[in-house]
Amino acid sequence: MLTPENKQSEIMQRRSDYQPPRSLSHWLIGRPLSTADAPHQTIGKRVGLAVFASDALSSSAYAIDEILLVLILAGAGALSLSLPIAVTIIILLTILTISYQQTIHTYPGGGGAYIVARDNLGEIPALIAGASLLVDYILTVAVSISSGVAQITSAFPALYQFRVAIAVGLVAIMMVVNLRGIKESGQAFAIPTYFFLGMTLFTIGVGLVRSLTGTLGVVPPGSVEVAHAGETIHALTLFLILRAFAGGCTALTGVEAISNGITAFKEPRTRNAGVTLTWMSVILGVNLLGLTFLADQAGVLPSHLETGFSQIGRVIYGSGSPLYLTMLGSTTLILIMAANTSFADFPRLAALVAGDAFLPRQLQFRGSRLAYSNGIIALAGIASILIVVFRAQTNSLIPLYAIGVYLSFTLSQSGMVIHWLRSGRLRPGESYQNHGQPLYFDPKWKIKMFLNGLGAVATAIVTLVFSFTKFMEGAWIVLLLIPFLVSLFMVIHRHYKTLANSLSLEKFSGLPARQPRHRVILPISGIHQGTLEALRYAKLLSDDVTAIHISMDPAEVEKVQKKWKVWGEGTRLVLLDSPFRLFVEPLLEYIEDIIDQRQPNETITVVVPQFIPSKRWHNAMHMRTAGILRQELLSKHGVIVTDVPYHVHETEME
Amino acid sequence: MLTPENKQSEIMQRRSDYQPPRSLSHWLIGRPLSTADAPHQTIGKRVGLAVFASDALSSSAYAIDEILLVLILAGAGALSLSLPIAVTIIILLTILTISYQQTIHTYPGGGGAYIVARDNLGEIPALIAGASLLVDYILTVAVSISSGVAQITSAFPALYQFRVAIAVGLVAIMMVVNLRGIKESGQAFAIPTYFFLGMTLFTIGVGLVRSLTGTLGVVPPGSVEVAHAGETIHALTLFLILRAFAGGCTALTGVEAISNGITAFKEPRTRNAGVTLTWMSVILGVNLLGLTFLADQAGVLPSHLETGFSQIGRVIYGSGSPLYLTMLGSTTLILIMAANTSFADFPRLAALVAGDAFLPRQLQFRGSRLAYSNGIIALAGIASILIVVFRAQTNSLIPLYAIGVYLSFTLSQSGMVIHWLRSGRLRPGESYQNHGQPLYFDPKWKIKMFLNGLGAVATAIVTLVFSFTKFMEGAWIVLLLIPFLVSLFMVIHRHYKTLANSLSLEKFSGLPARQPRHRVILPISGIHQGTLEALRYAKLLSDDVTAIHISMDPAEVEKVQKKWKVWGEGTRLVLLDSPFRLFVEPLLEYIEDIIDQRQPNETITVVVPQFIPSKRWHNAMHMRTAGILRQELLSKHGVIVTDVPYHVHETEME
Repeated sequence: MLTPENKQSEIMQRRSDYQPPRSLSHWLIGRPLSTADAPHQTIGKRVGLAVFASDALSSSAYAIDEILLVLILAGAGALSLSLPIAVTIIILLTILTISYQQTIHTYPGGGGAYIVARDNLGEIPALIAGASLLVDYILTVAVSISSGVAQITSAFPALYQFRVAIAVGLVAIMMVVNLRGIKESGQAFAIPTYFFLGMTLFTIGVGLVRSLTGTLGVVPPGSVEVAHAGETIHALTLFLILRAFAGGCTALTGVEAISNGITAFKEPRTRNAGVTLTWMSVILGVNLLGLTFLADQAGVLPSHLETGFSQIGRVIYGSGSPLYLTMLGSTTLILIMAANTSFADFPRLAALVAGDAFLPRQLQFRGSRLAYSNGIIALAGIASILIVVFRAQTNSLIPLYAIGVYLSFTLSQSGMVIHWLRSGRLRPGESYQNHGQPLYFDPKWKIKMFLNGLGAVATAIVTLVFSFTKFMEGAWIVLLLIPFLVSLFMVIHRHYKTLANSLSLEKFSGLPARQPRHRVILPISGIHQGTLEALRYAKLLSDDVTAIHISMDPAEVEKVQKKWKVWGEGTRLVLLDSPFRLFVEPLLEYIEDIIDQRQPNETITVVVPQFIPSKRWHNAMHMRTAGILRQELLSKHGVIVTDVPYHVHETEME
Repeated sequence: MLTPENKQSEIMQRRSDYQPPRSLSHWLIGRPLSTADAPHQTIGKRVGLAVFASDALSSSAYAIDEILLVLILAGAGALSLSLPIAVTIIILLTILTISYQQTIHTYPGGGGAYIVARDNLGEIPALIAGASLLVDYILTVAVSISSGVAQITSAFPALYQFRVAIAVGLVAIMMVVNLRGIKESGQAFAIPTYFFLGMTLFTIGVGLVRSLTGTLGVVPPGSVEVAHAGETIHALTLFLILRAFAGGCTALTGVEAISNGITAFKEPRTRNAGVTLTWMSVILGVNLLGLTFLADQAGVLPSHLETGFSQIGRVIYGSGSPLYLTMLGSTTLILIMAANTSFADFPRLAALVAGDAFLPRQLQFRGSRLAYSNGIIALAGIASILIVVFRAQTNSLIPLYAIGVYLSFTLSQSGMVIHWLRSGRLRPGESYQNHGQPLYFDPKWKIKMFLNGLGAVATAIVTLVFSFTKFMEGAWIVLLLIPFLVSLFMVIHRHYKTLANSLSLEKFSGLPARQPRHRVILPISGIHQGTLEALRYAKLLSDDVTAIHISMDPAEVEKVQKKWKVWGEGTRLVLLDSPFRLFVEPLLEYIEDIIDQRQPNETITVVVPQFIPSKRWHNAMHMRTAGILRQELLSKHGVIVTDVPYHVHETEME
């Protein structure tokens, strides 16, 4: 134990044996985990696929529609273009996958667009990437939960009036489960993801067999209300094809998820993350190609009322059959699960950005279950606000958030191009540190740079197509929001930086010499045991104590004077008459006078007797001027404020 | 000026020259008044009549209806009983007036039911009277504003949907005007009151002349939807007559108002208040008798849809004539003005009750305009809540609040009976202090006691009749609310009393001897200029300083250790490892350990470096743990907490 006699310089290291008590949060999110448990809170490939692929998989459920809805503008004949477009998208997916494999292995500590852009392109591109992704994750939660709920309410119309409550409730459940940590939330949410995955692959398999055996059948004509039917047919321009391609590219949102979440994986991290990325891309590719092929074969027609996926299901299983309904159910589940990828990535990315002091530091805080609690809560809160504001009808936001993702793709891959360029400039065996990341010569740098460059160009085109074609539909919101967020990041950064600089000890020569004079001011509202306690403490601090009584009532002044003569221990007392019956203001003015006259570095302490009621509601019966006084003194005047508490104990209250 | 060298006992009296700056409230409620201005903030008889009579006058507008609506139950023939009932009520009014004249002269410092009951009957009756009156005043505001707004919206139906907003707005206007002080609010609100008064007396005058000249006319048959028409006729029992009498007695609510507000009057207070009371009673009597007589002459029929007053107006001025509409307008105004009497009385009564420590002391506070601001704001707040909850349809509450008034009448007059009894027991010329109030022998004590006794019995009967006949209509609410409030008063009283006792210096023998040991604990989150400032202060307090760093990150621990060796001035540092990443809890546990081991009266101070951002919103970027820590330390552990502020100044932020 510490002995007070031991006065020499001494640094002791102790481990706190504080155990968080069982509480409500304990029951809700599980027993607190020690920091040492962190390695056990990582996930393997199977759970990782469920957590990080659900966003990407959910987009494959509506990607065909995005393509077909554009092509139909050029007439039904143009629909057959969907297959070559899907193949192109799969080529893009392949490029992206290879590129992100390279990124994951180059940045094992988390290699999202933010990090890659920061290390290779500089601060502004990094912040743009970070802002895009953070906005994207928030929109994903709001949109995917809302569309999931829309599916539920179209099956059970009676629930329609409760849709906002249901959606917010689902966000809350997802938040709580994620506060339990990535491991538990991953395990809990793996089932619906694998259920959708199994169901989709089974549907594609059955469809392909039927197609090969010639028993697939066709969507019954007239059973679908075709979009844009009866409108004038546009020419099949390159622009239209590009739009259809861009629409299909929404299927690839979510491919970046793993690169942002590498730290969630078990060791060997990079290997596990890389393998999971490959699995995900293969599944995504199979889904995309399979569904587009089947849609072509079965004559799926684009409609605003029924998805292509549902039409394929009807052809294969028959409308209303149990398997068809199961397929629709699994789609609802995956739409909701897509939000879970955001819950895994948003807090990690926010913590990274906060670690570079571009977001409030609280986002770096890991809660009792080692999850980034503040980030999870912030995500759930902002998404819930969006859901409430848009009354859970956020479907129109779907096209918007792809812009942010493709912008971050472009930045990330451009960053990688610079990386390989730098790598190529080195001699074999040579290496240096680039932002704390080792940079080696890579003999294959040219081919790698080419691949990343190809990806950069391709995604840049998609970004531009998105921005132009969707500008009026709301893309302008994203294009305004991102610069706003970037400026916000920079304001926050400046605050932390100036703070750190002005508190820094690096060029600090020590505080100015201390004056021995210590002046103590003791405001009192009356003379009682609490006041005497404070007076005794004030006299312990210094011999130079001035008590001040603000008087509003001449009758009280006399009482105070008389009592002070008995109990004041000869301390100077100033009776300050307050003609306007104010307490804080005259006192502050008096103290300001004293501050104005103080000698350099003279210390002034204001000792405030603070009444602590035994029950919190008792505060309603007291003026609480002590709190206001402290606030004012600390913030405006920089004097030191000491609270001397006096209690009236429960037992005396009986 | 104070010189610090002057250390002997010294008590200085100074007058603060602090001048409240011009501000928004300045513009809203007027320039602040010094306490010395209080005598100029009183009102004369003319304004006093307007302030304190508006409640009573407004009831005369609906008293006839209260009588007729009961009598009609025994058939149209019973309506002629209204005149003798009105005469009886006027006799009661006379008794009450004489009785309150006696009270005013006996209690010149404010002689409401609360004071009279307190000094003569004891604590519980006083609290019952206080609770009844306070509830009555709150209900008066809610009900009278709501009925005024109902009159407005029946004239302009388009405003009906905004009625809650209009009512709350009127309460807010009344609040602001009353915060300007009784003088200004009285002057502002005198016009509508005198307008109603003039209009009513004019109507009665014209009516009487017409009646005497035989040109009065009669309410056209069929123009009124008679209440209870076609129902079986009840027997004209004594109970029915008592009910009609009690209904008419609502006209006398408000007679007590002046006795509660004596302190608002100019000197000679009692004379001014007494004369005003006489005026008010005479006017009220004339109104009551005149209107009842005219109602009888004009064949007014009780209706739920049109007031008797309106029917009289129609007969005299003709339906739709400008004078008739002016009369209705003045009625609307007086209904709203009735609330102003409550704004004059509630804050005064609340301040009296708070002065006896039965209500939070803040209610004694007089704001910048010498009005009891907190009382005015509390009244406006509670009344607004009632208006919002009842959607401004509080008319059903009208009968309720008469119970409280009559209960307080009864208590007040019973108290006066005891007063005269005590007076009668003295010998001529003998006197003693009764609760700070001189009690003399009064030669007329027997007749005075008889008058008060008569009043007490009469009002007690009215109270009982009210309680029985209105019990199911909601009187039970009042009969539950009053005991609840009385218990609340007593809980508050116990709190203040125990507090005063346990802080009292009367039987206090001085604080226990002080141990010379002063232990200082300095929690630090990092080592920077702010920390060094706090460390220097800690070392100024004592040689026994222990710095504590809660560490969550081993990398940081090393940095802290290294820095401390350079900057720690040899101070003991404890590095407390927090495995659950908590800050406050392990620190509190550590401090608790130290408290457990402290020697008797050893002083422990916790010095908290407190970061003060230059802009308030910057707080969002900091953890604010200092505040939580202070709260916990002060409330649970009774240690002394010192905040050493460190600022980062605006200029450095550029």
